[in-house]
Amino acid sequence: MKAFMDADFLLSNDTAKKLYHEYAAKVPVLDYHCHINPREIAEDRRFENITQVWLGGDHYKWRFMRSCGVEEYYITGAASDHDKFIKWAECLGKAIGNPLYHWSHLELQRYFGFYGALSAKNAEEVWELCNKKLAEPSMTARNIIKNSNVTLICTTDDPIDSLEWHKVIAEDKDFDVQVLPAWRPDKAMYIEKPDYAEYIGKLAKVSGVEITSFEDVKKALCIRMDYFASMGCSVSDHGLEYVYYAPATAEEVEAIFAKKMSGGEVSREEEFKFKTAFMIFVGGEYCRRNWVMQLHYGVKRDNNKVMFAKIGPDTGYDCTNNYAPSSQLADFLNAVNEATGLPKTIIYSLNPVDNQAIGTIIGAFQDSAAVGKIQQGSAWWFNDNKTGMIEQMTSLANLGNLSGFVGMLTDSRSFLSYTRHEYFRRILCNLIGGWVENGEFPEDYDILGEMVRNISYYNAVNYFGFNL
Amino acid sequence: MKAFMDADFLLSNDTAKKLYHEYAAKVPVLDYHCHINPREIAEDRRFENITQVWLGGDHYKWRFMRSCGVEEYYITGAASDHDKFIKWAECLGKAIGNPLYHWSHLELQRYFGFYGALSAKNAEEVWELCNKKLAEPSMTARNIIKNSNVTLICTTDDPIDSLEWHKVIAEDKDFDVQVLPAWRPDKAMYIEKPDYAEYIGKLAKVSGVEITSFEDVKKALCIRMDYFASMGCSVSDHGLEYVYYAPATAEEVEAIFAKKMSGGEVSREEEFKFKTAFMIFVGGEYCRRNWVMQLHYGVKRDNNKVMFAKIGPDTGYDCTNNYAPSSQLADFLNAVNEATGLPKTIIYSLNPVDNQAIGTIIGAFQDSAAVGKIQQGSAWWFNDNKTGMIEQMTSLANLGNLSGFVGMLTDSRSFLSYTRHEYFRRILCNLIGGWVENGEFPEDYDILGEMVRNISYYNAVNYFGFNL
Amino acid sequence: MKAFMDADFLLSNDTAKKLYHEYAAKVPVLDYHCHINPREIAEDRRFENITQVWLGGDHYKWRFMRSCGVEEYYITGAASDHDKFIKWAECLGKAIGNPLYHWSHLELQRYFGFYGALSAKNAEEVWELCNKKLAEPSMTARNIIKNSNVTLICTTDDPIDSLEWHKVIAEDKDFDVQVLPAWRPDKAMYIEKPDYAEYIGKLAKVSGVEITSFEDVKKALCIRMDYFASMGCSVSDHGLEYVYYAPATAEEVEAIFAKKMSGGEVSREEEFKFKTAFMIFVGGEYCRRNWVMQLHYGVKRDNNKVMFAKIGPDTGYDCTNNYAPSSQLADFLNAVNEATGLPKTIIYSLNPVDNQAIGTIIGAFQDSAAVGKIQQGSAWWFNDNKTGMIEQMTSLANLGNLSGFVGMLTDSRSFLSYTRHEYFRRILCNLIGGWVENGEFPEDYDILGEMVRNISYYNAVNYFGFNL
Repeated sequence: MKAFMDADFLLSNDTAKKLYHEYAAKVPVLDYHCHINPREIAEDRRFENITQVWLGGDHYKWRFMRSCGVEEYYITGAASDHDKFIKWAECLGKAIGNPLYHWSHLELQRYFGFYGALSAKNAEEVWELCNKKLAEPSMTARNIIKNSNVTLICTTDDPIDSLEWHKVIAEDKDFDVQVLPAWRPDKAMYIEKPDYAEYIGKLAKVSGVEITSFEDVKKALCIRMDYFASMGCSVSDHGLEYVYYAPATAEEVEAIFAKKMSGGEVSREEEFKFKTAFMIFVGGEYCRRNWVMQLHYGVKRDNNKVMFAKIGPDTGYDCTNNYAPSSQLADFLNAVNEATGLPKTIIYSLNPVDNQAIGTIIGAFQDSAAVGKIQQGSAWWFNDNKTGMIEQMTSLANLGNLSGFVGMLTDSRSFLSYTRHEYFRRILCNLIGGWVENGEFPEDYDILGEMVRNISYYNAVNYFGFNL
Repeated sequence: MKAFMDADFLLSNDTAKKLYHEYAAKVPVLDYHCHINPREIAEDRRFENITQVWLGGDHYKWRFMRSCGVEEYYITGAASDHDKFIKWAECLGKAIGNPLYHWSHLELQRYFGFYGALSAKNAEEVWELCNKKLAEPSMTARNIIKNSNVTLICTTDDPIDSLEWHKVIAEDKDFDVQVLPAWRPDKAMYIEKPDYAEYIGKLAKVSGVEITSFEDVKKALCIRMDYFASMGCSVSDHGLEYVYYAPATAEEVEAIFAKKMSGGEVSREEEFKFKTAFMIFVGGEYCRRNWVMQLHYGVKRDNNKVMFAKIGPDTGYDCTNNYAPSSQLADFLNAVNEATGLPKTIIYSLNPVDNQAIGTIIGAFQDSAAVGKIQQGSAWWFNDNKTGMIEQMTSLANLGNLSGFVGMLTDSRSFLSYTRHEYFRRILCNLIGGWVENGEFPEDYDILGEMVRNISYYNAVNYFGFNL
Repeated sequence: MKAFMDADFLLSNDTAKKLYHEYAAKVPVLDYHCHINPREIAEDRRFENITQVWLGGDHYKWRFMRSCGVEEYYITGAASDHDKFIKWAECLGKAIGNPLYHWSHLELQRYFGFYGALSAKNAEEVWELCNKKLAEPSMTARNIIKNSNVTLICTTDDPIDSLEWHKVIAEDKDFDVQVLPAWRPDKAMYIEKPDYAEYIGKLAKVSGVEITSFEDVKKALCIRMDYFASMGCSVSDHGLEYVYYAPATAEEVEAIFAKKMSGGEVSREEEFKFKTAFMIFVGGEYCRRNWVMQLHYGVKRDNNKVMFAKIGPDTGYDCTNNYAPSSQLADFLNAVNEATGLPKTIIYSLNPVDNQAIGTIIGAFQDSAAVGKIQQGSAWWFNDNKTGMIEQMTSLANLGNLSGFVGMLTDSRSFLSYTRHEYFRRILCNLIGGWVENGEFPEDYDILGEMVRNISYYNAVNYFGFNL
């Protein structure tokens, strides 16, 4: 029996151990997609207690507690931070097979020096230990980032964002980790939303463009893209129900936009046409600017209306939407390719069932503009666990070029989540090590070591073109 | 090499063995969903020969024999019981990788004391041995149940059923296993069927409600639910093509019902609207009564019309229907939740591809009304095999709370099928044991032992609220 | 650690080794579905260099090179054969987890006697070695086939094909491998294509039937089927977007055909109706002639229009189409069964997600006309790798009769691809061996050995009814 989560955690053979310890563990962390609030970095936030860090906004943990029958009072309610932690510890102690178990214990090990197993039995002890540790200078937001060997972080930002906190961080000589904005213009595309016109008004204001047409929206977005680029941005991100391909003429699109802006109701068909046009436009701009286009799809959000009314969005009530025609994804990529050329693109589906279709689609749009120009993104959200990562990487390897994979991102709001890169690297090394041990690939560390270092870090550096 | 199906069958490491033998194997069996005929228990049925037990109504075995090219004469035809068994033994001898192989051999071991491997070679010998054994008093329906350490069985019953045999069993002091009805009102919902009006007539008669509207149907069903509850029922079950969400006004629903009752043709759209309304209604009633709602979906039945004309339904001609929009499942659960509160719910899809979507959806409707209030049901029907169970439990663990899982059911018509609980428990213990041996969870038998006992038995006791 | 791709490659236990070396490896190869050009066999083609063999038309390799960022110049462009090979070797050296890695190295071992690992390091050396070997008499098309222990090959042929090269081969006494045509009438069904009428003209000419109706198309096809049958054909093949079931009257179908032939535009609905009628017709003819019907579905072709314009079809720009309703597949099979009886049928989906649905559907149409009358085809195209094969065989075993499986085919244009049968057999033996070693099936080589030999070769001989 292997010891519980020791130095060789998840490394089940000698090749895997060598690859992890001698190669993967030695390269820095590049977190090209997360939801950290840059203000908290700028202000070098401190945390009073472990509940603030762990349970303040983590809907993964909230969902798990609800699945254990815990009352909402102890989850997002008025219970004390102490009591919330105790409830969480009780739940975690039973969380076998759930990624939260490993995420939490990797964080306890790496940041708090606790190597036991948290459960109801020792919850009080761990509460004390963590809070004491959090009072140390090493546990500020910036120090956690630095001690995690992070070289660069991409946040997620709206086109109308001032990026003021990114400026503060960039100008601060004492902090040499790059914190760059990423462009997420969902609100400019979500024409079905009631507050769309209001958003367009804000976009007009911040860009200085008077917006009376979709053409004007494009102009305004280009101005903001220029601004984002000036702040170091080279990555975009999109949240899509699925990747649409509903072609329409420019006139149709303008008519849909005009209808919405004058208070009319946009049909589902019109919505898809507008969004298709929007995405083809931004795809072209990304290509021109050599930005990366990230497409995240397959989500149905805020399903529990009773709870939404009480505690709002991003609180653990989302699920997978299994309608996502691969034909439209392929047709959309082709449309951008034909119109302007396709930018570097990373595709993530929330539905693991899509792995193979995505793998076959990305293979149809590769070219020499980059190694792995079209990528399948790392196992996302509900799939961001051992099983999901193994399946995503196995599928990618079967259908394409695993060695060119840009690898892991945290997608997280937490400063302790960098251990997920470690988790990923252990799984990667074990997967590759297993193939080698099984005689399926030669034990050649020139090739294997470079491959592991690249997937862990250098592929992302090169692919995004960061200045590192 | 491990010995063939010995005491450590499917247990590939020491933790798994300890968990199975010291914990899982020691708790009783609760079979909360099956298709046993209660009359056969009431009358304490005996079996003349092994063909009656094994091949009398088992469409799994029939399908396999057809896949081996056996003539229908030896399957559901006029061949002698002896000849049918010999043909079956020939087929089984080659059934590598099929759950029938393990199901059959577990039954041979546990009920007949035969530890060999059945094949064409020894078919005659096993025929004699089994039939001799079946003549013993221990092999009546009741004795098999008692010797299988079963404490409670839920059958599957129509609202118009008199439940007379459940009464007989309940009143019999000599048999202390609870045999409770489960409520399956499919016929009251299948408005598309030609005999729907006829069924409604029967429902009117048995409930004493004159039915001229959907409101009257609801009244009649409530009267029958009261009756079922008085007989110990706390579990419902539904067979759905997929989980529909096609909202309609009460007036629309009444109009659809009226149309059907007056001999009109109901469109597909109307069917979905009616069924949605029906399910929202019963969901509310279940919530009010604290019943469990089981949703079984993803089936396309009776696909081979030529064979249907010859031998009717439930004869091995069903398949998976892969159209099942997760968005409608989520919207339906939300609709019940908003209208009345959601009852405890167990969701089963015939399509294993749905595992992840279901796992994400159940997580969006959990609350403190129960541990694992919304459950993903155990791998069902075509997925009820080693692969299917591992996938279902791995998915559930990744996305939710495996420790709260209500576990296994037989879904069977056979009195020998309780060994499927053993099969499940071995697979469960091996899965958990494997995680522990791999250093992914601590070797803490306080937690692990309780977890295994709970998933094997106590979770179901508590979840359904049975009086045990 | 196992040695790199040695004699026990992919065989991880003793049972697997025994099954492979003593049973699977000793039976011949029957390749019932490939895309080899019969002319190249008739003319006993020779190859100047390894690039011609490996990179001349292999879109798998092209896709992989594009995924590595190689310029098209070195893929399908004007670069020299030498330079293309060097680029390919660089890419292959990093192709961990990709089937190309194993396919290529099995070919290097079996045909070129090279047991190293090809990469950038030794590309020049391997280039020399292979080209030297290709100059030997053993490396002509015919000798490769004979030395691969192939007894029979089915090519893929259009109804209007003269089959002249098949005749040449059949009449040649010096070459005793059967090279039979397979019937692929896609062009007669693809009514949506611009050149449909032109094709029908050719069909009329070659069949001697004046075609003015769909009934005439049927007559012409029957005449051609008779001709194909006279040339030894007993296998058909169909490429379908998905398996349609859109029933229509004979009048409707004639009207759709007439519309198309008179230059009209056929709607999607009309297309599906026509194709359904077409498939029901040919299904009946196959049943009457005791031919096998192969259905390949789930592909979306030529997605990259920019590249299509440059280099045409079958160049690596296809992907999986994930729209494939299982209900229509089941209804189609039922329709043929009701109309005429169902022929022996093999179903392949490009989407591995369909495995379970297919497994449940084939089980609903089995009968005693053949062992495994309705088959799930071996893992196809993008799934033709270790993972895909294991999943397909595990699914088939769980849901049906693995022992009756007709097994592997190359689906290839290459004369070196027979090693894929070896690859398949190793994976098969390891899967079965693993079950035996785990105590899940008895170590009975009478049963196991026969099973492995059957799946590797004899099942196909018997199922297709070849004269071997």
